[in-house]
Amino acid sequence: MSFHDRLKASADVIEAHLNLRLSDLPESELTDAMRYAVTGGGKRLRGFLVLEGAALHNVPQTDAIGAASAIECIHAFSLVHDDMPCMDDDDLRRGKPTVHKKWDEAMAVLAGDGLQSFAFELVADGALQADRKLALSQTLAQAAGATGMAYGQALDIAAETSGAPLSLNDITIMQSGKTGALIEWSAAAGPRMVGADPAPLLAYAKALGLAFQIADDILDVEGDEAKTGKRLKKDADAGKATFVSHLGLDGAKKRARELVAEAIDALSLYSAQADYLRDAARFVISRDS
Amino acid sequence: MSFHDRLKASADVIEAHLNLRLSDLPESELTDAMRYAVTGGGKRLRGFLVLEGAALHNVPQTDAIGAASAIECIHAFSLVHDDMPCMDDDDLRRGKPTVHKKWDEAMAVLAGDGLQSFAFELVADGALQADRKLALSQTLAQAAGATGMAYGQALDIAAETSGAPLSLNDITIMQSGKTGALIEWSAAAGPRMVGADPAPLLAYAKALGLAFQIADDILDVEGDEAKTGKRLKKDADAGKATFVSHLGLDGAKKRARELVAEAIDALSLYSAQADYLRDAARFVISRDS
Repeated sequence: MSFHDRLKASADVIEAHLNLRLSDLPESELTDAMRYAVTGGGKRLRGFLVLEGAALHNVPQTDAIGAASAIECIHAFSLVHDDMPCMDDDDLRRGKPTVHKKWDEAMAVLAGDGLQSFAFELVADGALQADRKLALSQTLAQAAGATGMAYGQALDIAAETSGAPLSLNDITIMQSGKTGALIEWSAAAGPRMVGADPAPLLAYAKALGLAFQIADDILDVEGDEAKTGKRLKKDADAGKATFVSHLGLDGAKKRARELVAEAIDALSLYSAQADYLRDAARFVISRDS
Repeated sequence: MSFHDRLKASADVIEAHLNLRLSDLPESELTDAMRYAVTGGGKRLRGFLVLEGAALHNVPQTDAIGAASAIECIHAFSLVHDDMPCMDDDDLRRGKPTVHKKWDEAMAVLAGDGLQSFAFELVADGALQADRKLALSQTLAQAAGATGMAYGQALDIAAETSGAPLSLNDITIMQSGKTGALIEWSAAAGPRMVGADPAPLLAYAKALGLAFQIADDILDVEGDEAKTGKRLKKDADAGKATFVSHLGLDGAKKRARELVAEAIDALSLYSAQADYLRDAARFVISRDS
C-alpha cells in the first residue's frame, strides 16, 4: 500500500470511530457543532502517528483507535478555539466556515470545551491495561495543557500582543508547545500502550513536529489558498517572526530537510515496519495543504 | 468540629494541593491566569463532597485530594469561560475582576482550556488502583462534557438566544447538566475510589444539586451583592425563566426544603460519619453567597 493510501485508510477508520462515538452523545446543537468541527476533513496526521506507533508495537488497531480519535479531538478543539475572533480570528477552516461563523462564539467555546472532555473519554476506549490507559490519559493532559499546547499558544499570543518579534529560539520553544506536544504524544502513544520505551518515537516526533511547523511557515508564503483551505500570508501581513523570516525561504527548506533526516535516523531501531513513519517524515515537508 | 470548620479545613487542603501542583507548571502568564482563576476563594463545595465521600469509604485524604482538586479545576474552568462576553458577560467573580477583564479574552479561553487539561492530570494524583483512577477520569470527562456540564450550558445559551422561556422540566434538565453533573461526580468519587456502589451518594447529590440551583435562583432575587461577590438580579432583568419564576419565592423555598430532606434520606445507609454531608445539604439552601 502506498503512503497516501495508508494515510487515507487510517483517516477513514478514525472518522468512523469518531462518528460511532459521537452517536453516543445526546442529540443537541452542541453535539452537532462538535461533530462539525472534528469530522469530515483533515489529514489526521496525529491519529495516523498513533496507529502506526501502535502497529510497530503489535497493538491491535481496535485498541489504538480510541487514542487516535482522542488526539484528533484535542487537535480539533484547539482549532475551534484558535479560530475565534479573540485569538486568530479566522472565518475558514478546511474550506468551511469556522464554528463561530456557522454558529456563534458561545458555541465555539462550548464545542471546543466539549471536544476536550470527549478526548479524555475516547482515550480509554479499547482493551488495554488500565495502568497504560491511565498513562495515555495523563500524558495527553500534559500535552494539551499548560506544559504543552496551551503553553505554546499563550506564548504565541503574548508575542503578537507585545509586537516584539520572537528570536529563532523563542519560536522553537513556542512551536514545540503549540504543535510539537500533540505530535510527540501521538508518536509515543503506541509504545506507551504496551509499556515500552517511547524515547525513539519521541525523538522522531520532535524532529518531525519542528519540520512540520517550518513547512507550515513555508506554505504560508508559497502555498495556494484553494489547496490549504485557509487564509495564507497571515504571518507576513502581521509582521510576525517565523522560521522563514529568520532563515529565509531556502534556509528554512534546508533546515526542514535536515530535520526530516533526523526524524528518519531516530527510527533506526525499527525495521521496514516503520517505513510508513519514514514516509510521513518526508510527507510533512512536501505537502501542499 | 462544626460543619463550617470542616468545610473551611477541606477548602484549605484543596487550596494547598492546587498551589503545590500549580508550582509544577512552567512559570508563565498562562499559569498565572490559571492560578488566579482556581485559587484564593470559593466554598469548594464540590471538593468537600469528594473528600467527605472518600472519608465515608475509608480512603486516606492524600489519595482523595487529587480528585477534589480536579473537580475544582473543572468548576473554575467553566466559570472562566462562562464569564466571557460571548457567554454570560460578567466582570466580577468572587469580588475580583474576571479573567478576561484582568487579562483579555484570549487568555480567558486558554486559561479555561488549561484548567480543564490540568484537571485530568490531578484526578490521578495519589495511590489508588489504576483502574479506579481511570474510572474517576472517565466519569469526570462525561460529567464535564457533552453529556453533562457543557450540554447544560449549551441548553442554557440556546434558551437565551431563542428568548422562549423554559418550562420547569426544561430548567431541571438544563440544571442537572449545568451544575448537577459535577456535584454528582463529586459525591460519587469516594465510592468509586474503592470500587463501591456509588448509587446512594449519587441519589444524595442529585437532590442536593437541584436544591443548590434553586437556592441560587432565590439568592439571585434576595441576595446581597456584597456577600455573593457577583452581579445579581440578572435572571429577572433578562426575563429568564427560573425555579423562582415558575414556583414563586415561597414555592421555590418549599421545593428546596423537600429536596434537602430527600438528600438526607438518601444517606440512610450511612452512620453518623455522614453527618457532614447531611449538614452540607442543609447548608446549600441556607447560604448567603
